[in-house]
Amino acid sequence: MNNEDKCDKFAAINELARRRGFFWQSYEIYGGVGGFVTYGPLGARLKQNIEAKLRELFVTKLGILEIESSVITPGKVFEASGHVNHFKEPMVECVTCNKRFRADHLLEEYAKKSCAETEKMDLEQIQKALKAHGVTCPECGCGFKNPQQFLTMFQTTIGPYSNAKGYGRPEAAQGIFVEFNRLYVMAREKLPFGVIQIGRALRNEISPRQGLIRLREFTIADLEFFFDPEEPDCCLLKDVENETLWIYLAPERQACSEKIVKVTAKDALAKQIICSEWQAFFMAMAKKLLTEIGVPAENQRFIEKLPWEKAHYATQCFDQEVYFDRWGWIEVSGHAYRTDYDLDCHTKASGADLRVYKEYPEPIEEEQLVVKPVMSKLGPIFKGEAKKVAHLLTKVSAQEVASALEKDGYYMAKNYKLLPEHVDVTHEKTVSRGKRFTPHVVEPSFGSDRLFYAALEYAYGLKDDRVVMSFPRAIAPIQLGVYPLVSKDGIAEKAREIYKQLLNEGFATELDEAGSIGRRYARADEAGIPLGITVDYDTLKDGTVTIRDRDSWQQVRSLIKDLPKILHSYFQGKTNFEDLGT
Amino acid sequence: MNNEDKCDKFAAINELARRRGFFWQSYEIYGGVGGFVTYGPLGARLKQNIEAKLRELFVTKLGILEIESSVITPGKVFEASGHVNHFKEPMVECVTCNKRFRADHLLEEYAKKSCAETEKMDLEQIQKALKAHGVTCPECGCGFKNPQQFLTMFQTTIGPYSNAKGYGRPEAAQGIFVEFNRLYVMAREKLPFGVIQIGRALRNEISPRQGLIRLREFTIADLEFFFDPEEPDCCLLKDVENETLWIYLAPERQACSEKIVKVTAKDALAKQIICSEWQAFFMAMAKKLLTEIGVPAENQRFIEKLPWEKAHYATQCFDQEVYFDRWGWIEVSGHAYRTDYDLDCHTKASGADLRVYKEYPEPIEEEQLVVKPVMSKLGPIFKGEAKKVAHLLTKVSAQEVASALEKDGYYMAKNYKLLPEHVDVTHEKTVSRGKRFTPHVVEPSFGSDRLFYAALEYAYGLKDDRVVMSFPRAIAPIQLGVYPLVSKDGIAEKAREIYKQLLNEGFATELDEAGSIGRRYARADEAGIPLGITVDYDTLKDGTVTIRDRDSWQQVRSLIKDLPKILHSYFQGKTNFEDLGT
Repeated sequence: MNNEDKCDKFAAINELARRRGFFWQSYEIYGGVGGFVTYGPLGARLKQNIEAKLRELFVTKLGILEIESSVITPGKVFEASGHVNHFKEPMVECVTCNKRFRADHLLEEYAKKSCAETEKMDLEQIQKALKAHGVTCPECGCGFKNPQQFLTMFQTTIGPYSNAKGYGRPEAAQGIFVEFNRLYVMAREKLPFGVIQIGRALRNEISPRQGLIRLREFTIADLEFFFDPEEPDCCLLKDVENETLWIYLAPERQACSEKIVKVTAKDALAKQIICSEWQAFFMAMAKKLLTEIGVPAENQRFIEKLPWEKAHYATQCFDQEVYFDRWGWIEVSGHAYRTDYDLDCHTKASGADLRVYKEYPEPIEEEQLVVKPVMSKLGPIFKGEAKKVAHLLTKVSAQEVASALEKDGYYMAKNYKLLPEHVDVTHEKTVSRGKRFTPHVVEPSFGSDRLFYAALEYAYGLKDDRVVMSFPRAIAPIQLGVYPLVSKDGIAEKAREIYKQLLNEGFATELDEAGSIGRRYARADEAGIPLGITVDYDTLKDGTVTIRDRDSWQQVRSLIKDLPKILHSYFQGKTNFEDLGT
Repeated sequence: MNNEDKCDKFAAINELARRRGFFWQSYEIYGGVGGFVTYGPLGARLKQNIEAKLRELFVTKLGILEIESSVITPGKVFEASGHVNHFKEPMVECVTCNKRFRADHLLEEYAKKSCAETEKMDLEQIQKALKAHGVTCPECGCGFKNPQQFLTMFQTTIGPYSNAKGYGRPEAAQGIFVEFNRLYVMAREKLPFGVIQIGRALRNEISPRQGLIRLREFTIADLEFFFDPEEPDCCLLKDVENETLWIYLAPERQACSEKIVKVTAKDALAKQIICSEWQAFFMAMAKKLLTEIGVPAENQRFIEKLPWEKAHYATQCFDQEVYFDRWGWIEVSGHAYRTDYDLDCHTKASGADLRVYKEYPEPIEEEQLVVKPVMSKLGPIFKGEAKKVAHLLTKVSAQEVASALEKDGYYMAKNYKLLPEHVDVTHEKTVSRGKRFTPHVVEPSFGSDRLFYAALEYAYGLKDDRVVMSFPRAIAPIQLGVYPLVSKDGIAEKAREIYKQLLNEGFATELDEAGSIGRRYARADEAGIPLGITVDYDTLKDGTVTIRDRDSWQQVRSLIKDLPKILHSYFQGKTNFEDLGT
């Protein structure tokens, strides 16, 4: 690691991640494949702990339903959802070396266009911009063929028939929408309710980059919250209404102003900065999640998406962003108001009715204008065609017929002239007890791998020139290290006994017997183990151990028999390090 | 549900699973797609709890390393591993309706062939057997075209180049093997060590069936345990050596005998029924896992695979089977001794050295026969060709030269005749400090979805004509139900308060306020909630609640303030229901 790299957290973290087994690029022995990473033992646990935190906040405490559906999805689903038409990125191919690139990324990198600008461009505009800025192939310097749209879903075939197209899902949301009718029954046919799915998703990126930021295979947490648009109030809002959100609004972004609005969830709604109460609630919860995995409030913000940046299904849309040392502000979660778009699409495409029935508080009486043919009059005039004329009347609005009769004195049903005496125009009362409607959806969607990288970057710190990974204790991959001071005189045996006891209590514990105690502490700090338990000669005499704090390097002394109780309390966040001993 | 279905647990469980949200076939609104299921809210939790139990037994307690790698895998990996050549199933296509079927399944179903028989057959034998037994298309009754091999991996393209082939992984093991060098460093370069991966896998089945038993997308838990074949002893064997394993041996299977050997893990090794200590250890652990998710010992067994049934990489191989009501004995885990097959394949294909270095306890001195040309003698005789002759000597074994000289008095190096005085034959001592070798692998591999179905089937029971799902308390999807006896007089509020308190203590808790208390208990029994907490008028008076046992329907009374402590103890398996109150 040279000095230049040292200044860059991204490089330092990637080196640490490979060496200690947080993550690395997969398939290195075959030259590596872009966009795929392997989470090693420390990384897999950290990622699971972050996902557990997400479950704790959303599934357990809010009663959101969790499901698991398949990554491979039949083509029909993504045709109906609009993905087959819209899930594309502009691509260019070099005329000489035939390498392919994402055209918008080239413009961002070599023509200093913003992401907001390139997302607006069509293929023709992209081509012009590439020419205007003299952007050429980064590999060989030659020009490009005409840009084309590249479908960024992985495509495959399901079963033995080549026409049974399937896609790797680029999001977990559709797996929820297509099962809406069953899920509504499981929610006891009451709105509002939410369903979450945390699982693998696939995007066949043209040229993946930025480590964990843009992967071809990643873990997504999509939460679809269904509510009645006529009853949009959020019953949980008061729990978070005073949470301050930092928001970079669409008009400021378009004006290239840097102005950030700092506003409570409550005020954001009052000022109509956020349109939906549930969306504001989930944005506040998303801030809470990021804070709990270690990202300070001042390094989080929400940006309002510009009209052309929004996904094809969204009306109002915000991205939650975290500030990263190398990349600047990067999206970690998306907050889209998807309205009834998806359920409607699937209702239309599948023929299944994905609406719900709502009973009115009181039956509603409606007076309706009705036009009925008087057959005793129609028969003699139209003869064999009387029935046809009567049928034509059922196809037009009663209002239209009544107006024509009043205004012109007759109504033309196709070529048949109807006079007022040919029909009865009456007002009838109907009673409606309820109606069917499509619920609206607010969706918070988290990228688990980006949350993971945020946790790594904000845990990363140097103390006395050594790396200390200060993970919040709730997500630390290993909770406890056990260290015999020396390996003789029964001390190693005692340490192993304590180690087993702590394992049985359910703590993620590591026993480290190799090397000097200082080296073992350093290794533990690098792995982010919050507490170290050292077994020494006093342990054998008085049954006490030393507990060492990863961040302050302070030590206290406690009785072995108290460990389960005080450590559970510590990891539940109920006590501080100072309370663990003397 | 008619009486016939009632007798069949499979039908009853599938009905319950759909209705209560354990699982159902995915994409029903689009007509359903075979081989894909969606786990609903109860199912997703049950599945996660089973996977957590697997992690507890293998990851936490044994210190197995867990990783997460990608489902989409570059083609090279599965070419090297042998999957592209071997991961195929015989398929036939109807000449008339063009429907395609798995040929071996047709033979099993319509010609009553056993799985052991069909696995042995090549395409020609399959064709003959189909004809001999008059098997025709189940759809239209016509004949079949020639059988062909169908690759049952999902195929796709990675990135924008059509030649970059990728596959959906049919197992999680290769994701471990290809990262062996990094993982070995993380295991501190010591054998033995194990690595597990629990994740999605894909098999493009020709005609999936049997509900959860044969899926196109499923969750696999592959554990690869690496050890030195010269030090094959299992240091953990004594923990499980007296566990009795029921084994259906290969010779008995071939003789169509029904005889099952009941033998302890220790005796199975002594009698060489199982060749590897680590394999015996993991088989005993697998029995423990199945027992803990609710399958009684007498409904579990291991079958030894016949030579032609084994995967292409395995030497000795056992399947753990569970007895299912409709299907009979079905595999839930596989136990293969993969030797050094996989690491060797990847070493050869990638050029990366996946061997480890072993230092001998003592450096080994070896005496080696050495034949050196005496150039001062060769020069005058062979002139300009002396160097060539000397070089020829380096290409042959010293033993061969020495023997010839002794026996014949000369040695022919190609056309050059060498006499004893032309060479020095000496014995030299070399010191070897260690060697490089490829570790051997024992693999237990669990199908999470089959474990899930086993848990469902063995939890299923009827009491007073009602379904009670008696999940072991450690895997029950919901742990506690809270029920206000009535919704008035502050009882509902009190129940909500207790509900929140239990949620905050980390219990998976449900609040049910709808319907009679009897109906609520019935709903809870069907969802397999072990304990119900009922809040009544006495609660308001003396701060006690009723706790109801799902299985015995007995009730005890306890103080609210004791609940966290006694319930944690109950779910950790430390106390029984009777100890929860009076």
